[in-house]
Amino acid sequence: MTISPRRIAILAEGSFSLLDAKTASGVIRYSPHETVAVIDSTKAGRTVQDVLGFGGAIPVVSGIAEALERKPEVLLIGIAPMGGQFPSTWRKIITYALDSGLEIWNGLHAFMSDDEEFSRHAAAAGTRIWDVRKPPANLSCGEARALKARAFIVLAIGSDCNVGKMTTCLELQKCARERGYKAAFVATGQTGILIAGDGTPLDAIPGDFMSGEVERLVMQCDAEGADVIFVEGQGAVLHPGFGAVTLGLLLGAMPDSFVLVHQPTRTNHRPDCDVEIPPLSHVIDVYEHLMTWYKAPKVAAIALNTHDLSSNDSQRAVEDVKQSTGLPVTDPVRAGVEPIFAALEPLIKLKRGL
Amino acid sequence: MTISPRRIAILAEGSFSLLDAKTASGVIRYSPHETVAVIDSTKAGRTVQDVLGFGGAIPVVSGIAEALERKPEVLLIGIAPMGGQFPSTWRKIITYALDSGLEIWNGLHAFMSDDEEFSRHAAAAGTRIWDVRKPPANLSCGEARALKARAFIVLAIGSDCNVGKMTTCLELQKCARERGYKAAFVATGQTGILIAGDGTPLDAIPGDFMSGEVERLVMQCDAEGADVIFVEGQGAVLHPGFGAVTLGLLLGAMPDSFVLVHQPTRTNHRPDCDVEIPPLSHVIDVYEHLMTWYKAPKVAAIALNTHDLSSNDSQRAVEDVKQSTGLPVTDPVRAGVEPIFAALEPLIKLKRGL
Repeated sequence: MTISPRRIAILAEGSFSLLDAKTASGVIRYSPHETVAVIDSTKAGRTVQDVLGFGGAIPVVSGIAEALERKPEVLLIGIAPMGGQFPSTWRKIITYALDSGLEIWNGLHAFMSDDEEFSRHAAAAGTRIWDVRKPPANLSCGEARALKARAFIVLAIGSDCNVGKMTTCLELQKCARERGYKAAFVATGQTGILIAGDGTPLDAIPGDFMSGEVERLVMQCDAEGADVIFVEGQGAVLHPGFGAVTLGLLLGAMPDSFVLVHQPTRTNHRPDCDVEIPPLSHVIDVYEHLMTWYKAPKVAAIALNTHDLSSNDSQRAVEDVKQSTGLPVTDPVRAGVEPIFAALEPLIKLKRGL
Repeated sequence: MTISPRRIAILAEGSFSLLDAKTASGVIRYSPHETVAVIDSTKAGRTVQDVLGFGGAIPVVSGIAEALERKPEVLLIGIAPMGGQFPSTWRKIITYALDSGLEIWNGLHAFMSDDEEFSRHAAAAGTRIWDVRKPPANLSCGEARALKARAFIVLAIGSDCNVGKMTTCLELQKCARERGYKAAFVATGQTGILIAGDGTPLDAIPGDFMSGEVERLVMQCDAEGADVIFVEGQGAVLHPGFGAVTLGLLLGAMPDSFVLVHQPTRTNHRPDCDVEIPPLSHVIDVYEHLMTWYKAPKVAAIALNTHDLSSNDSQRAVEDVKQSTGLPVTDPVRAGVEPIFAALEPLIKLKRGL
């Protein structure tokens, strides 16, 4: 899936930070679009670089009027309001943006295209509201079609949810492209979809159709001639809340290889779960054993999320996991994904006959 | 969950048979309600016994007017119309039933309470429409709470979908009750919900909430003091379309034991799937291995669905599977579930301190 680059303003009022604005920071870092402004009156006057530590001179502005001076084509809503409802101040910003002809890209669970006021303004201005989490109309069941894909399929799996699977996939896609491979990314969460311009919001899809949705997207990338497809994982197979979604991904994607993403400092499943994360060896064993009936994918390498460790501790954690698993290990953000791609590359070449 | 018995008329126009009317036959066989008439003009004048081979003298009648002579309180819609829409003849039957004060119980994907005409008639008559497949409003995520249940939890799992898990559970519940145990049944599909009067329509629940729904129902039965809870399984863990739903059940129910349901004549996953069902030994291994991090449930016994075999072949199949697995095996419908319950009973007693 390709999407033509657009000029984007991001609404992050009151919560523009690395911690609170995962979607905003993901889009700024990885999307093909140009972020021209971030709206957060509490941080106005600073740059994105000041706030996030990356992103350069993109200005943080006080409101929609100031953002419009930078000529955006899109207003992207990346943060969740408290309580799930749109506060009245947001209503003003969104209708103003629509009246100015901007598209609205909305990653929230609450659909803006269903809002009578918003849809009226969108129609009047001849623009559109894209609710990223709205499931497609025609869902179908999985049929293991991805077993027949000619592309090499890599699924990012995790020891827990919210651990860095999307980032790992996007870094791997970048790395593969730099090395001349036709590399696709299948987005399965709202941030990934906003970045890629396509995908499926798995957390909004009824269980019967999850693997079918993943299969559809994988086979679409395959038909477009991808050498390698990186599929964004969700949850963790033994997560008491989200394991089902993970298995939907396994059966839909039918991966050739896994990349396991893990945060060494985490002991319990998120959020606030009274359930321990199993040892890494057990996690690997469960994923690999589960899929032996199909392609019998192995964990090819491990992406370690060490953002909360010192540089020394991060390196020690990487060494420890290398030792205990015998697999290539790296922190994709701190040290790059090259060791992971190096483990995948011969397998990609083999399947593609390169 | 208990529900007071009601007098039910079943709408099965044009399709009342064991093959086409799974819901109708399930309700007639297992629900605490009294079926007073089945509407199917193509079979009017016969009895349910004539058509299904069980059900006694319940008349099959030509239309709603004739059904009303039998004083039903409920009209149950158990069959799917072609194309998913309600044909106009059905509209007449349903509005007539509503006008006569009957409740409508609807197991279809299409919600009747959302239909303007139906809801108007229901309101005017002071009755209600129960859309069994409508998800509850407040869904929550699974948190492995069922690990703390005091009841013994049995999950019916399958080598494929649509193989007899509900029937096995209902027969086991009956058997346990006859032996003096407080036995609950957690329904997870529309027929089971119509029979039990409660449950969760798992195929309509977004993936993130499936295990949470199962957990909620299991803990409700546990709080009501059940000795043993039989949880209706769905799909099969390696089914390319429905495996995710199955894992949602595993993680939500946190079973103490599995009962595996299998149809020996089936080679490929249903419906029309180009994927072979793994050998039984592999199926057992995958289910047991997957859950070792939690309670490490084992397959205690096997329910064999041999409805499409001769009596001799059925007995041979039972013997074969006994030999190859070393487990108790029976066809619950042809030979009863006693061998399965005998395998579970000591485990139930142990957990309950009986």
